[in-house]
Amino acid sequence: QITGIGIGMPGFVNARTGINYTFLKNGNKGITTHISEQTGLPVFIDNDSSLVALAEFRFGAASNKKNAMVVNLGWGIGLGMVLDEKLFRGNNGFAGEFSHIPLFTNGKLCSCGKHGCLETESSLLIVTERARTGVAEGKLTMLKGQLGNASAEQDCAAVFDAAGKGDRFAVSLLSEAGYIVGRGLAILIHIINPEVIILSGRGAAAGKLWLPPIQQALNEHCIPKLADSTELEISALGYEAEIVGAAALVMENYEKILSQKDKESRLSVPLN
Amino acid sequence: QITGIGIGMPGFVNARTGINYTFLKNGNKGITTHISEQTGLPVFIDNDSSLVALAEFRFGAASNKKNAMVVNLGWGIGLGMVLDEKLFRGNNGFAGEFSHIPLFTNGKLCSCGKHGCLETESSLLIVTERARTGVAEGKLTMLKGQLGNASAEQDCAAVFDAAGKGDRFAVSLLSEAGYIVGRGLAILIHIINPEVIILSGRGAAAGKLWLPPIQQALNEHCIPKLADSTELEISALGYEAEIVGAAALVMENYEKILSQKDKESRLSVPLN
Repeated sequence: QITGIGIGMPGFVNARTGINYTFLKNGNKGITTHISEQTGLPVFIDNDSSLVALAEFRFGAASNKKNAMVVNLGWGIGLGMVLDEKLFRGNNGFAGEFSHIPLFTNGKLCSCGKHGCLETESSLLIVTERARTGVAEGKLTMLKGQLGNASAEQDCAAVFDAAGKGDRFAVSLLSEAGYIVGRGLAILIHIINPEVIILSGRGAAAGKLWLPPIQQALNEHCIPKLADSTELEISALGYEAEIVGAAALVMENYEKILSQKDKESRLSVPLN
Repeated sequence: QITGIGIGMPGFVNARTGINYTFLKNGNKGITTHISEQTGLPVFIDNDSSLVALAEFRFGAASNKKNAMVVNLGWGIGLGMVLDEKLFRGNNGFAGEFSHIPLFTNGKLCSCGKHGCLETESSLLIVTERARTGVAEGKLTMLKGQLGNASAEQDCAAVFDAAGKGDRFAVSLLSEAGYIVGRGLAILIHIINPEVIILSGRGAAAGKLWLPPIQQALNEHCIPKLADSTELEISALGYEAEIVGAAALVMENYEKILSQKDKESRLSVPLN
């Protein structure tokens, strides 16, 4: 029996109204309404990074934490925030656009239309691109002949695999991206003073390879008193986090579903 | 009759333990314990910017707001955060170190020991310094002969006064600082998605002069959908905000004070 449908999507998502303003726009009728009408099931949606945070909060490294920043290392660098033991979504559900904090004057246009965003120097897309370029330029690496024929997803997995086997070029790509993520996290720590930062999402598969470059950036860019107050952890949920989070989203709304069903059943009772 | 004493101070303040880790260190005995012992009154302390935010939340532009960022424009650029209708202080009470977010590679050493912090390009100290340098270099300004003989506080007031009268050099100094503050606020908006940003503290005296350069920076560095969701307001409390906030801090703890008194009066009743 299916209780409901949970959807995680990138983009500007208003979880309350069920509208994703970035993808699959459908007038003012949200994607949730559309799927609910077709399936007859209650449907809920949230931003992918918020769901990764929800998964970590309910089942992972952020459970029992009062304040946790969950970084979604993926094609962008997403952020879900647990503040005062609740998922924080901001005023319109747009909080956590970490990927687009303006950090560089690098002249690189970002997918968002701005330039110099964090993700222009640190996302897995950049890591994969740099791997392909490096191989094409003849870098000494076990990735030689392995990239460029498959999807970005497969190439990225190949980079992680090579890095895990100690390939110096692959490790250096993750170090470079990690250091930049760390510079962004230094800003986050100064603003939020979180208990823990959890590295989650697809990128968490590279595990401990992220820690030294990120810690290095924190050492350089963070007031020690602040950096020392924040733990840095790698998620064990990783790639599965978003899917777990989408299921958790339905569970979060379970009472709402029940009261809706209750209302329907009462309406179906004859009035006298 | 005095109910209690409220203290606002810059520095790393742990409001729960009453310890200021930056100034007037006194071993592990907090300044609050010390003053309480001397006066016999309950004493509470918080970071100056948190109190500015508390004042705005209880009596000012942040009242009735669910999420508000209160910027304390002063010798640094402080930040107090109202999140989900509560003052948010972070895991150790250190949240809001906005002044020290690492934003520049300008090679300027900051008071915190790092370099490139936001305040190295935008605090009122920098504005005052630049005014003095400009006058010494013979810039065309009504500030000529007015600066350098008095305190930074008086010189800063003179710059505000001149800017208010339309002095182009003085206006340009505030514009320059405002644009940098705006770049920092663009980061804040991407992370928090706040309902409103309130410009408060000493610097609020310059009023609407701050708005165009800050708005300009937001137009350049913020995703429009996010920038459009956040209002920008000048506080009417301004310079008084911190003092009002310190009084409000005592009121926030009023129940604690009452229950303490209640306990004492019960203890003074003979046991039979």
